[in-house]
Amino acid sequence: MSEQNPNQTITHILETFEAALKSGDTAAAVALFQPDGYWRDLVAFTWNIKTMEGREQIAAMLNSQLDSVKPSRLKIADNETATEADGVTQAWITFETGVARGTGFIRVKDGQIWTLLTTMTELKGHEEPKGFKRPMGAEHGARVDRTSWKENREAELETLGYEKQPYCLIVGGGQGGIALGARLRQLGVPAIIIDKNERPGDAWRARYKTLCLHDPVWYDHMPYLPFPDNWPVFSPKDKIGDWLEMYTKVMELNYWGATTCTSAKYDEAAGEWIVEVERGGEKLTLRPKQLVLATGMSGKPNLPKFKGMNVFKGEQHHSSKHPGPDAYKGKKVVVIGANNSAHDICGALWEAGVDVTMVQRSSTHIVKSNSLMDLALGDLYSERAVAAGMTTMKADLTFASIPYKILHEFQIPVYNAIRERDAEFYDRLEKRGFMLDFGDDDSGLFMKYLRRGSGYYIDVGASDLVADGKIKLKSGVDVVELKEHSVVLSDGSELEADLVVYATGYGSMNGWAADLISREVADKVGKVWGLGSNTTKDPGPWEGEQRNMWKPTQQHALWFHGGNLHQSRHYSQYLSLQLKARMEGIPTPVFGLQQVHHLS
Amino acid sequence: MSEQNPNQTITHILETFEAALKSGDTAAAVALFQPDGYWRDLVAFTWNIKTMEGREQIAAMLNSQLDSVKPSRLKIADNETATEADGVTQAWITFETGVARGTGFIRVKDGQIWTLLTTMTELKGHEEPKGFKRPMGAEHGARVDRTSWKENREAELETLGYEKQPYCLIVGGGQGGIALGARLRQLGVPAIIIDKNERPGDAWRARYKTLCLHDPVWYDHMPYLPFPDNWPVFSPKDKIGDWLEMYTKVMELNYWGATTCTSAKYDEAAGEWIVEVERGGEKLTLRPKQLVLATGMSGKPNLPKFKGMNVFKGEQHHSSKHPGPDAYKGKKVVVIGANNSAHDICGALWEAGVDVTMVQRSSTHIVKSNSLMDLALGDLYSERAVAAGMTTMKADLTFASIPYKILHEFQIPVYNAIRERDAEFYDRLEKRGFMLDFGDDDSGLFMKYLRRGSGYYIDVGASDLVADGKIKLKSGVDVVELKEHSVVLSDGSELEADLVVYATGYGSMNGWAADLISREVADKVGKVWGLGSNTTKDPGPWEGEQRNMWKPTQQHALWFHGGNLHQSRHYSQYLSLQLKARMEGIPTPVFGLQQVHHLS
Repeated sequence: MSEQNPNQTITHILETFEAALKSGDTAAAVALFQPDGYWRDLVAFTWNIKTMEGREQIAAMLNSQLDSVKPSRLKIADNETATEADGVTQAWITFETGVARGTGFIRVKDGQIWTLLTTMTELKGHEEPKGFKRPMGAEHGARVDRTSWKENREAELETLGYEKQPYCLIVGGGQGGIALGARLRQLGVPAIIIDKNERPGDAWRARYKTLCLHDPVWYDHMPYLPFPDNWPVFSPKDKIGDWLEMYTKVMELNYWGATTCTSAKYDEAAGEWIVEVERGGEKLTLRPKQLVLATGMSGKPNLPKFKGMNVFKGEQHHSSKHPGPDAYKGKKVVVIGANNSAHDICGALWEAGVDVTMVQRSSTHIVKSNSLMDLALGDLYSERAVAAGMTTMKADLTFASIPYKILHEFQIPVYNAIRERDAEFYDRLEKRGFMLDFGDDDSGLFMKYLRRGSGYYIDVGASDLVADGKIKLKSGVDVVELKEHSVVLSDGSELEADLVVYATGYGSMNGWAADLISREVADKVGKVWGLGSNTTKDPGPWEGEQRNMWKPTQQHALWFHGGNLHQSRHYSQYLSLQLKARMEGIPTPVFGLQQVHHLS
Repeated sequence: MSEQNPNQTITHILETFEAALKSGDTAAAVALFQPDGYWRDLVAFTWNIKTMEGREQIAAMLNSQLDSVKPSRLKIADNETATEADGVTQAWITFETGVARGTGFIRVKDGQIWTLLTTMTELKGHEEPKGFKRPMGAEHGARVDRTSWKENREAELETLGYEKQPYCLIVGGGQGGIALGARLRQLGVPAIIIDKNERPGDAWRARYKTLCLHDPVWYDHMPYLPFPDNWPVFSPKDKIGDWLEMYTKVMELNYWGATTCTSAKYDEAAGEWIVEVERGGEKLTLRPKQLVLATGMSGKPNLPKFKGMNVFKGEQHHSSKHPGPDAYKGKKVVVIGANNSAHDICGALWEAGVDVTMVQRSSTHIVKSNSLMDLALGDLYSERAVAAGMTTMKADLTFASIPYKILHEFQIPVYNAIRERDAEFYDRLEKRGFMLDFGDDDSGLFMKYLRRGSGYYIDVGASDLVADGKIKLKSGVDVVELKEHSVVLSDGSELEADLVVYATGYGSMNGWAADLISREVADKVGKVWGLGSNTTKDPGPWEGEQRNMWKPTQQHALWFHGGNLHQSRHYSQYLSLQLKARMEGIPTPVFGLQQVHHLS
């Protein structure tokens, strides 16, 4: 084969690929892939969030979808050039389908497609009104009885949910619900966000006082309105609360604070949900066509059941209810758990001069915040990445372009480097008896997060307190029982306690579905989150994508949204497009609706 | 002379220029300029906002400033290349002084400098904490008794103005005061903004309901946090109000709403102002070192004195107090004035079905909003400019680089084109009897704005109503007197009226200085705004810069800030640097402190 430059390599393969797709020649299309090639599609081809692994799965998808999708105009994206390194040629691509425009990323190895990412960017005819299409604002010309923006907005706030039903109801007004609400508004999808707290941002304000975001700012931008370049790297909780509050206002979201959902039931005949809510004491019924639970990864507290919890005379609460250290000076506090919340809470207690013991029942993956920033995120989400021309969109898509199946392979070297860089730090912790891990396969923090959403601590200082013995530690033990004033551990020791904090994590989001809808529906959709990696707390079989997140579920018109700020931002794009398509009556033939293998 | 490419031309002249400056050879430096060359400096060389016109003035400045400024490292800015067109070679440049870094723009004609713009970007050692320098936010590590961001902020809000005095007090919390406050906070200058209205943005909220910004969004961005790309082109007033409110919050400004300044007096001995304020009913004394009046170009209403105003039995108010049309349905309204406010108010009244007559006493310059957007602003402030790589900073600096003395020459062709494009529109207006102008020298809207801040209407629909006779018009007349229920005009006609609106403009901002400080100080600083162009309402002599704006005045430690959103944004940078330098004790030898030629 003659020598080609990277652009030619990519252009050639795209042309061949497009020709095969256009003629419906699945076999020819599939042959262009590596035998172990991957195609990850976000909505454009599959109307799903789906990774096809290997030629067989790719073929199955094309056979199902090709006729309806009508892909065309596959090419290297404007103003982009293909690059080559280490035998891999790659490029940003764009394409169209019958109803949409898309962006993607392709990696080619030995003349065959190794990974292909295709994502839906916008629906034709329903492009967001931005840039050249931004709304005029002022209505030029004159018209009798013209209403002002303010009047229109007030009318909307008065009627939506009353005379006029929202197309979409979002339960949960944290960053997930808010990001999705912003996208839906830009797409003209009437939506209401409801949250039990009064003001947007309250979920953050209510947390313990020293809490700051653990992810750095470049990772955390909301859609449309990034944090300014003087925003702190790790946002204090109240600053995030304020940002979310103002974002909700300027993005013109219909946000009902102090509102709880008491029940929801899908009316098959009417094709809508019947949702009972209480809004500031008033009961009303909403009838959205689509229901999104954006109640949060850290939404449903997981409370353990220990013997003697009813006997204990001191205070006990889940970490999510912990008010901070102020009331506990001079007291003894026992914290059950050794992951993120436990460390934050123990650290704050120690700073307030409280006698605190951390009880570690299983190992924790610890990464120093700086190391995570530099080594794990730095190429995509950092000031140096920005300075080198990385945009949030490209960072998100680059990350999305690595198939989950092999993502751990990319992560392992990063965490090896981290292990080396911070060897002394880890040593000190282990000497103290702290049980460390780096994930089941040493693939580190992000895999742990994707697989189980827990089991780690991004160290911002508490680990040194543990290593130095300032936060007392009991590790490799279980809780046997609580007595009136103490916690008895499996090594026979008994810890006096005035307060026990259960930093014991959170349950699967379908627990909310059980509470709000029914056990039956919760079981119908199954466990939320996790990949099926057959690692701790993420049992197989392999599912290849986050269970139930941002995509159709087994319950018609029920969706889950959320994740960290990056996922809330990025995946709100795809969920909003799926909802918009349905509202517009655009056919959305879903390929490979996920099967349910676990109930929680 | 040998053929040079543009980069070489610029580099060569900068090298020669720098060598002359470094050796203190004023004559050699000045000889590099065209005889009618211009040097506009924003702070960096002159610690002033100053245009030197011609070699003599440039020489005077250099002789005064060169020793203290110590300029160095003049070069084409990184990642920029010089360009050449129509005999003019130009480039973005950067440079340093002894205490600062700067940016600028140079135009060279026939081997000599035609225009030079030098601006101060930052003070060495006092760079803003952004980008790579952004604050960490989270304080990593652990410290006993650490306070949270929220606690720090609350402490600041409690003590600033009480136990601790602000370095700078800004009177006026519109976009000007807010933009300046944001810059000062980034520079670590403790500042309080006070405003008589309760919430930031209220000045906008209180205006008549259909009001939208007349300048398009790309022109209007606030510092640090631009409007998102789905923000409307012409922002409805309440949206701007909301944006200013959230901006004030997330930029962490110390904003005292419902606060009025009752008096201010400079204490020479103590080197500070004694400012009496009333904050929510409580009286207190503030002692800032610097006082900024940011009370607005449209701050001090100008009310005419007509015979019979005390006789008139109907309602009468200045346009700034006009509540909108709702209370006047079925009534007769007479609006005195034919500029921006008059047109907006008449238009809204007509839309509400009110019988309205506009009384035009002098000619008005009218430009259709679309034409202004396309032809006047489009190259710098538009979606197409953004798409072509224009940034707000470059747009601001490009505009700033054109000397006021010759700016009209650049504007005249633009307005000729507008006159042609909208010939039919202007024709219809003139047929109706409307008195049109294009500025004294046909240089159009922006010159009128710079010279007198008035005398124009950016048409968003009301002109068609005038042309069609829907808004009734009496033009070329004066008001003789008011009677009990009517307005008598100089052509003998008498207009019945239930309401008379005086759309009669605003007075010079030093009127505020008279009210708050003293007549003496107001006269000491003199008229605010205008260039001394010897055109209508802008009497000579030529001053070359906006009188008293954003720079030292004849009253020590008294400053004026404001202008439209572009100026509030751009010039807040230079004012904040001047204030920061003084706070840090950096010497600020001012060249060419403006002389006072007019009192108002």
